[in-house]
Formats: sequence, structure tokens, C-alpha cells
Amino acid sequence: MFKRRVCQLALPRHRPTSTPRLPQRFFSTGSGRTASQRATPAVWAAAAVLTVSIASYALTQQTPKQFDTRSLAELDERTKREQGVTLDSPMRLRMEEFIRQKQEEIVFALEKIDGKSFRKDTWERPNGGGGLSMVLQDGNVFEKGGVNISVVYGELSKAAIENMRVNHKNIAEGVDKLPFYALGLSMVLHPKNPMAPTVHMNARYFETMRADGTTDAWWFGGGSDLTPSYLFDEDAVHFHKTLKEGCDKHNKEFYPRFKKWCDEYFNNSHRGERRGIGGIFFDDLDETETDQENGFAFAKEVLNSFLPSYLPILEKRKDLPFTQQEKDWQQIRRGRYVEFNLVHDRGTAFGLTVPGSRVESILISLPLTAQWRYMHEPAPNSRESRLLEVLKNPKEWV
Amino acid sequence: MFKRRVCQLALPRHRPTSTPRLPQRFFSTGSGRTASQRATPAVWAAAAVLTVSIASYALTQQTPKQFDTRSLAELDERTKREQGVTLDSPMRLRMEEFIRQKQEEIVFALEKIDGKSFRKDTWERPNGGGGLSMVLQDGNVFEKGGVNISVVYGELSKAAIENMRVNHKNIAEGVDKLPFYALGLSMVLHPKNPMAPTVHMNARYFETMRADGTTDAWWFGGGSDLTPSYLFDEDAVHFHKTLKEGCDKHNKEFYPRFKKWCDEYFNNSHRGERRGIGGIFFDDLDETETDQENGFAFAKEVLNSFLPSYLPILEKRKDLPFTQQEKDWQQIRRGRYVEFNLVHDRGTAFGLTVPGSRVESILISLPLTAQWRYMHEPAPNSRESRLLEVLKNPKEWV
Repeated sequence: MFKRRVCQLALPRHRPTSTPRLPQRFFSTGSGRTASQRATPAVWAAAAVLTVSIASYALTQQTPKQFDTRSLAELDERTKREQGVTLDSPMRLRMEEFIRQKQEEIVFALEKIDGKSFRKDTWERPNGGGGLSMVLQDGNVFEKGGVNISVVYGELSKAAIENMRVNHKNIAEGVDKLPFYALGLSMVLHPKNPMAPTVHMNARYFETMRADGTTDAWWFGGGSDLTPSYLFDEDAVHFHKTLKEGCDKHNKEFYPRFKKWCDEYFNNSHRGERRGIGGIFFDDLDETETDQENGFAFAKEVLNSFLPSYLPILEKRKDLPFTQQEKDWQQIRRGRYVEFNLVHDRGTAFGLTVPGSRVESILISLPLTAQWRYMHEPAPNSRESRLLEVLKNPKEWV
Repeated sequence: MFKRRVCQLALPRHRPTSTPRLPQRFFSTGSGRTASQRATPAVWAAAAVLTVSIASYALTQQTPKQFDTRSLAELDERTKREQGVTLDSPMRLRMEEFIRQKQEEIVFALEKIDGKSFRKDTWERPNGGGGLSMVLQDGNVFEKGGVNISVVYGELSKAAIENMRVNHKNIAEGVDKLPFYALGLSMVLHPKNPMAPTVHMNARYFETMRADGTTDAWWFGGGSDLTPSYLFDEDAVHFHKTLKEGCDKHNKEFYPRFKKWCDEYFNNSHRGERRGIGGIFFDDLDETETDQENGFAFAKEVLNSFLPSYLPILEKRKDLPFTQQEKDWQQIRRGRYVEFNLVHDRGTAFGLTVPGSRVESILISLPLTAQWRYMHEPAPNSRESRLLEVLKNPKEWV
């Protein structure tokens, strides 16, 4: 039903005469953490000038010549309602359906471990899309955890399209605007026990659409990383090994590339420390790397890997004994997590500048509690100082 | 000894053919929070392309034709050592001497109240300048408090000079680089008792120098703002009244202008909340507004106003009884303080990107502890909701 060939319109192609200036904060597709960690500067640049217009609702015919974003969102809703999502559905619907299933599955597994239930909040965006935040706070195992989905239907401006073309040659040329769809699942879990690591996982899908609602350009992104306060080497090995096995099924080059990308992205550069022991991070996985079915299969792999990569670690660590000193160290590491998310994470940063974005969903990644102790330095040869060493010099775990 | 007339060099003036792109983060003069809250976009823009070159040490003659920044720093050190600071000394030395006195005086007063001593850390910058951080943590009254001074000798690039000229017409034209000096005292106090407000005060001085070390362009900046978790109207009135009285001695227009500027600057725009009940904030106070002596007098006024504006409030609130719920609310407000400082404060943000800056001094403004509770909303008509109302709609207090 959907074609991968680029829509080559016969309109003249106007490149902007000068590159538009970037705002202080970069790209996010809005509420939640959808597409929150797009790492390629050109993509961020493109999105910085992205305009999400609240277009008037004008869907009246079955195959309209020109859609606005809201109409597309409503068409998708109708498709889901009347026909259901099948293998022939546009990728955005298939990926969304899968992501919604995973959100439920993951939350179900986490509730089973914690014994308490996640709170569920849905919200809508005026021009199409919305989200579902699932949050557990003050649990038995988790201090705080959030598993969020967000969906955005928006419109790329001409400048945004031109900028995005730097990384995605297939985006339609010569058009003044282009509807886009961005989908993301993003989750962070902060366990109470300082021996149990914080974890983050994220999966994203982005596409631009033609006037008839079929897919034009598309790409996947995602990743997962682990942030222990106390490092158990066997946990780091298990986490990376699980991710590597998932990657290897698709492309032997993925793990080494995406592991490195992760170490580079989750970097508290002002401290000279990574935020954790890494994992994988990828973006812009498009037709230059794989076909859409295989891209989807890989995104599913990452989502499917989450529970097996993390739960065995959590089970082993969640009930270990700990001292107040160890709890304090965890709180200091929580502070560093806050620093990364508020200072360096591009998605969080831009999300906070988008009017109407759901701040509470964006900031669900922040821990319940954190500390900043002036000039705190762990004792030499302590477990705490060993962690810092690894954060300063990321290791190969598998 | 120093002239206010602009050095008009006969060199051709080259405007950059295109405005340089801004980095994601903006300007600070480096370590500490010196010049940390310059608010005028053009100044930030200028500084974004500012280069602080670590020049080789070449000071050999008494009145050299060309200084590097390190030479200027050493000349200043020698002047202070051999001649002392007098009314004839360059303003940078007079302001620095005053600021160092105030740091001691303020810390002395705070130690008297707290009963515990501040830790004192000095540091140096390789190309001239340095700082002194005084920090009290886990005190009897203060959870955490820092009173920092930092001094930077640096060099403005041509692009930075041209950009800075937007706000300061007097900066030397047609030169390729220009030595600058930036000085700041910045302090934040977080009391333990949730009834006692957090306070911030800052004073800054910036100048560019001619080759003989005399002042070329100069300006003052500064301000002070109060962040209560529980709002006592009489405290807000006292704080603003004290600041207004100081301002009024110099210019009746200062308080209304600088009060508004403060409300605009200390704004957690992603929450639609100010970080506190405001105070004053000013920048770019240069010869277009006042002469240098009066600018200095006003900066001194702001520094002198600090203890009388804050101590009476602290004395009244530091021993009030409070509940765990009130302590929790304070922790949530602390989280908002972290959000402002890490997301919006331009000085903090840029400081963190400058290689070699002293991160622990920059981040001393962060509280010892903070909380993020998902979807926390105070009960209607509670004291907590009244505070939020005022943070959303800043009041006139005097």
C-alpha cells in the first residue's frame, strides 16, 4: 500500500538563500519525549525551524488532494477504527500499534515486580496526536518510573524540509510544506535500592507523508542505557550482551556503532563523565541503511530486548542491603542524571520550549529525589571511585 | 588615570560579512558565575564567539604597546601589591577590592547566624584571574549556601567585539581583538527551614581595556531575587522595599525597570512560573545611563543592600515550626530552582560549556536536596497554591 519511492513533484526547488539561525534549544516533536534524542545535528537543525501549524479541519472527501495535519490524524484514527491495523497499513500505524502493546506489556511486568500500579494519563494535541503517560511513584521497588508514548502530527516548513534533506535525500523536493508524523516511546526507571541501576529506553519513528497519506521519507531511532550508582560488572555485561545479541540478528555492525554513539550522546561533558555505563543509541535509520520492514523489525528488537536486558539485573539488586552512605551516593548520582537531562538532552531541552507541550511528561525522567553536595569526592579505591573511572573512560563490556 | 573616551583606532573597520552562528549555549566569562546573568541577547551573542586565549606571558616593559590577557592580569596584581588600590586605580581594581570586602562581610554575618563556618576554596585561571568560593553545607540554618567571586582576564575576538557594539557603542572599533576583564560576585543561600526563603544576589563588572591597561568600554550588572516556598507578604514587601530604597537613591526609574527585568529573567517559562517573588535585575549599566563613578556607586548599593534586605527575613523565619508536608513542598520548589538554573540561566549554561571552568563553583547555586513529584498540585486555596498564583502573576510589592 505504501511506496518507498520519493514523490518527485514537478515544482521548482527553492533552496533558502541563507541557512536559518538556530534557536537556543533544538528539536523535539513536542509533548512527551517523542523523538527526544535525535542526535544528528542536521536533523535537529531541520526541526528547529519546524512549524507545527494548527490547521483548520477540512477533511471531507475520501482521498483528498491536500491534507492538513489534523485531517491526517483523523484519517488515521478512522483507518484504525474501521479497518484495524494490518500488514498493509502505513508504517506509522503499525509502529504505533506495536509501541502501545509494548507499553502495556512493560508496565504489566513492572507492576508485577513492584506490587503497586502505574497511574495512567492520556492527553491530546490540538492538531493531531497525543500521548499516554504511565507513571509509578513511591512504589515498593521504584522510587519513580515513567513509560510514555507520544504521537505528533505536524507540518514541516520549507526550511525544515531543506535542512532535513541533508540527512534524508528522499524527502519530497520543491514543496512548501510537508506533513510529518513522529512517534516515540520513552521510559526511565529509578529504583529505590542504590544497588539497582536506573535504566532508560526509547524508540522513535518519524515519517513525512504525501497528500494521500502514504509514507514519503521515514526513519527509526532508539536506544537504551543503564545508569548504576554501584557498578556490578556482571550486570553491565548482561545488559550490553542482551543488546548486542539483538543488534547482531540484524546487522553485525550495529552494536559497535550504536554502543559508541550511546557513549557519545549520554555524556555529561561538563563533568567529563558519561551518565552511565551506556548501551546503544541510534538515529536516522532509513532506506540508506535498511528497508522499512527491516527497520521496523530492528526497532521491535530494541523494544523487545528491554525486559530481558533489565529485569534480571533488577531482580538481583532490588533487595540487597545498603547503608545510608550508599543511599547518599545514589542521590548524588541522581543529581548527575538531572544535570544530563536538563543541560544536555536535546529532546528535553527543546520540548520545554514548545508551547503547549506536556511538561510533566517530559520531566518524568527526573528522579523523585536528588542531591548536590559541593566538592563530593569518593575515597580512593572505593566502589564509588571505580564507577567514576568507568564513567570517565567507557569500557567495552562484550 | 583612566579615560572614558573611546579609543578610536585608525584601522579600517571590518564588519563580519555574515552574523556568526550561535552555539546552543551562551555566554559566561568562565569559572564561577561571573557575569552569569547578562540578559541582553546581543551581549550573549557577542560572547558566544568570544575567545579566551591562553596567551604566552610576555610582560617585560612598564608600559607595553601590546598586552596579552595574562600580562594584564599580572600588571594588575603588581599594581595591587606595590601601590594598593586607590581612587585613581582602574575601576576593575576598585570594584574587585570592594567585592572581596563584601564577600568577607557577608560570609562573616552568615557564619554568625549559622554557627558553622564556610569552607573557602581559591582557584586560578591559566590566562589570568581566578576566584574564591566560600561554601557552607549542612549548616544549622543553611542547607547549602555559596558566596563566590570570580575574575576573568580574556580576549574578545573581532566578531565578539562587533556583536558587543550593538549594546555598547563605545567599544574600540576596527581592532582584531580586545582584552577584557569580567568580575562577579554571585551568591545563593538555601535555608533548611521551609518558611525561610532562598535568596540570590549577584554583582558584575565588565570592561575592555586599551593596550596600556586603561579602561575602554565598561558596564555594571547585578541584582537580587527572593524564592520563598511559603510566602509571607510582609517579607516580600520588606525585600522589595529595601531594594527600592537603594535604587531610588540613584535613579527613580531604576526600581520599576529593574523589578520588571527581574520578573522577566527569572522565569521558568516552561512552567509559566517565575522562580520566586523577584527583586531587581539589571545589566549593561554603562555611560549611556550613568558615569562610571555613579555606576560603581549603584553596584555598591546593591551589594550593601543585601544583608539588610535578607537577614531580617531569615531571622524571623529560620526557627518557625514546620511539618513534613511543608518540608516536601520546599523540596518540590527546590526542584523548580534546579530547573531554572540548569534550563534557563544563560550564565550557568554557557559556563558549563567552557573548557576548564570550575563546575563545582558554577553549580553551587543548586540546593543540597530537591524533589520532582509527578503531577503535584497543591490543594485549592492552600498557602502553596497562593504562592503559585503569585509566581504566575508577579505582584507589585511596594
